Amino acid sequence: MTISQFYPTINSVTQIRACTRDDQTGSKTVSGRPKASPQLNRWSRARAIRSGHKLDRSSPRTQPLEPNPPAPQLSLPVDPHDAVNFDAADVRTVKSIYMVSDGTGWTAEHCVSAALGQFDYCLVDRGCPVSTHLFSGIDDMEKLLEITKQAAKEGALLVYTLADPSLASAAKQACKLWVVPSTDVLGPITEAIASHLGVSPSGLPRGASGVPLSDDYFRRIEAIEFTIKQDDGASPQNLAKADIILTGVSRTGKTPLSIYLAQKGYRVANVPIVLGLEMPRTLCRVDPSKVFGLTINPVVLQNIRKSRAKTMGLSSDSMSNYWEMDYVREELEFAGRLFAQNPLWPVIDVTGKAIEETAAVVLRLYHDRKAKCIMPRISKRY
Amino acid sequence: MTISQFYPTINSVTQIRACTRDDQTGSKTVSGRPKASPQLNRWSRARAIRSGHKLDRSSPRTQPLEPNPPAPQLSLPVDPHDAVNFDAADVRTVKSIYMVSDGTGWTAEHCVSAALGQFDYCLVDRGCPVSTHLFSGIDDMEKLLEITKQAAKEGALLVYTLADPSLASAAKQACKLWVVPSTDVLGPITEAIASHLGVSPSGLPRGASGVPLSDDYFRRIEAIEFTIKQDDGASPQNLAKADIILTGVSRTGKTPLSIYLAQKGYRVANVPIVLGLEMPRTLCRVDPSKVFGLTINPVVLQNIRKSRAKTMGLSSDSMSNYWEMDYVREELEFAGRLFAQNPLWPVIDVTGKAIEETAAVVLRLYHDRKAKCIMPRISKRY
Repeated sequence: MTISQFYPTINSVTQIRACTRDDQTGSKTVSGRPKASPQLNRWSRARAIRSGHKLDRSSPRTQPLEPNPPAPQLSLPVDPHDAVNFDAADVRTVKSIYMVSDGTGWTAEHCVSAALGQFDYCLVDRGCPVSTHLFSGIDDMEKLLEITKQAAKEGALLVYTLADPSLASAAKQACKLWVVPSTDVLGPITEAIASHLGVSPSGLPRGASGVPLSDDYFRRIEAIEFTIKQDDGASPQNLAKADIILTGVSRTGKTPLSIYLAQKGYRVANVPIVLGLEMPRTLCRVDPSKVFGLTINPVVLQNIRKSRAKTMGLSSDSMSNYWEMDYVREELEFAGRLFAQNPLWPVIDVTGKAIEETAAVVLRLYHDRKAKCIMPRISKRY
Repeated sequence: MTISQFYPTINSVTQIRACTRDDQTGSKTVSGRPKASPQLNRWSRARAIRSGHKLDRSSPRTQPLEPNPPAPQLSLPVDPHDAVNFDAADVRTVKSIYMVSDGTGWTAEHCVSAALGQFDYCLVDRGCPVSTHLFSGIDDMEKLLEITKQAAKEGALLVYTLADPSLASAAKQACKLWVVPSTDVLGPITEAIASHLGVSPSGLPRGASGVPLSDDYFRRIEAIEFTIKQDDGASPQNLAKADIILTGVSRTGKTPLSIYLAQKGYRVANVPIVLGLEMPRTLCRVDPSKVFGLTINPVVLQNIRKSRAKTMGLSSDSMSNYWEMDYVREELEFAGRLFAQNPLWPVIDVTGKAIEETAAVVLRLYHDRKAKCIMPRISKRY
């Protein structure tokens, strides 16, 4: 079924330009940039960002924008219940991104979130506010076209992961017809893999093909359960069964990091370091190549502890020195001495790092030690 | 710096075709397919997969492959330490996918994993074995080109997420020159968002721009910590503080599901249902719109419990009826009666569903109830 059969009034629909497009910029010319090494360019960009400058649209990757046609009056009524927190001013200033999937939508969400990381510098001061809307389980044409129509009304960008090729094709056509900027996140990589393997994709979202859950999946579930039970030094006798052991003072991120790693299939135990308390003997007996120390800047740690204590509603009497700078420094030094006694444990400074970043560092080191490859990597067999 | 300046021997390098390419298929013509509704097509594909048929390369999305040029002899020595479990037979049968990132690489990994979901039907019987190799933190040209060179030797597909535009450009050039199939996962979506917002991407991997971690990030960390403390009904008095409450019999996936949701920022409590035990009173007092029941097919549950008991090394004496069918059915019926007494709790059948899929269902319902949109969605403001 083609879109025009589905939507007999297609001609009136093509008149739609969302009223939010007034402020979109048109084409910009590429400005001359002095030649520099990639490293220098990165430092320059980071410096510019930290000093609050907006980056112009002159990166080598940028294609000049096609100038937007002038926006005619909106011909379809906009339903205020169709947009979250909709009001006319909001729609003009906040840019919408619609993420549409015939499966869970987590891949589209992850990709959008990753890409938005490159706009952190203007999101952080609401210089370019964005709202994202995830539509998952969109496995029929009617729902897909309704959402695309709404995207057209709101001037949203449509990002889609549609395993079903007819839905993907319909989305592409509808976006072209209704002038909705869009990007297919799943199609290109699926096609690349299909060509590489020489077999066709199923065209079905994961879970719909009836293929049973894999052993690897159940191993990840078991890793999560192991890790939760080992949280906060709960069972030191089980350290030998862990793949990875994290150790560090309170609030260095051991718990969320261990959970993140567990979801990737690693059994993780975490062992807190507390000023004056002896470490469990089992920690000194395990294979040192699985142990990773975490450290952090004392000022940052103090802030995190204060904030945590406040969230938990703890008064300054009950934990009188937990966040005091002297105690914080002393505890970090205590941890530092323990790390120095165990030089085979890598020590990772987690200051300013998101859990995902620390996890990447841990796993690079972990696999590097195991595999001793010339080119360190994390490998997996399907 | 161009690639030929970097690699003066570029002409010898272009001779490389990895010896694994012998078995790659060439172009196939599109076969005629009877017209059918998208739903019927999906059912047909699922049926074909379940009956063990391989899908031909005739999906509407498929572009005919460019015929591969004949593979000349490999001119560079292949270092056995450079590939995991390398041996000549292995390289010919197992296809490699290299995932390269100047950041963590988790986005590339997620996308490859999602796309591979469409090849589950042939991965499951090792009809098209694949090994993936993740190279993260590749933020300089030399490392990038070494990896690309290795990909060329192994006949690997290169999938990259390179925020730095000069690295992305170099990867594209190198792959073209050395005939490495490749796909840029991050570039297209970053460009689409840049055009949509009218600002340039920073060109820096997340974390490198110096923008501090957001409030949303810390909220997610706090949600994880809350959820771990509430696991398995640990603190029923805190149910009112949870955003989402999961309830179901043992082994319906409450723990891993609660962790998955917590990582998305939801405070989750889980309450086990045990045959004969009264539910905590607080559960009946909380807002029913936050409670979700989990159920499962009894045969599947029995298998999971048996397998779990075996993993834990439990003998048949210690948990004599935990996995016996009569007990399993009785406990599920007990749960069913509880759910019937609380009709406002949605009940989700998790049989055969991966955690990610159940999470998508829970969150769709959760947000639908909260927002009462005509078009249910999960929305977020940046």
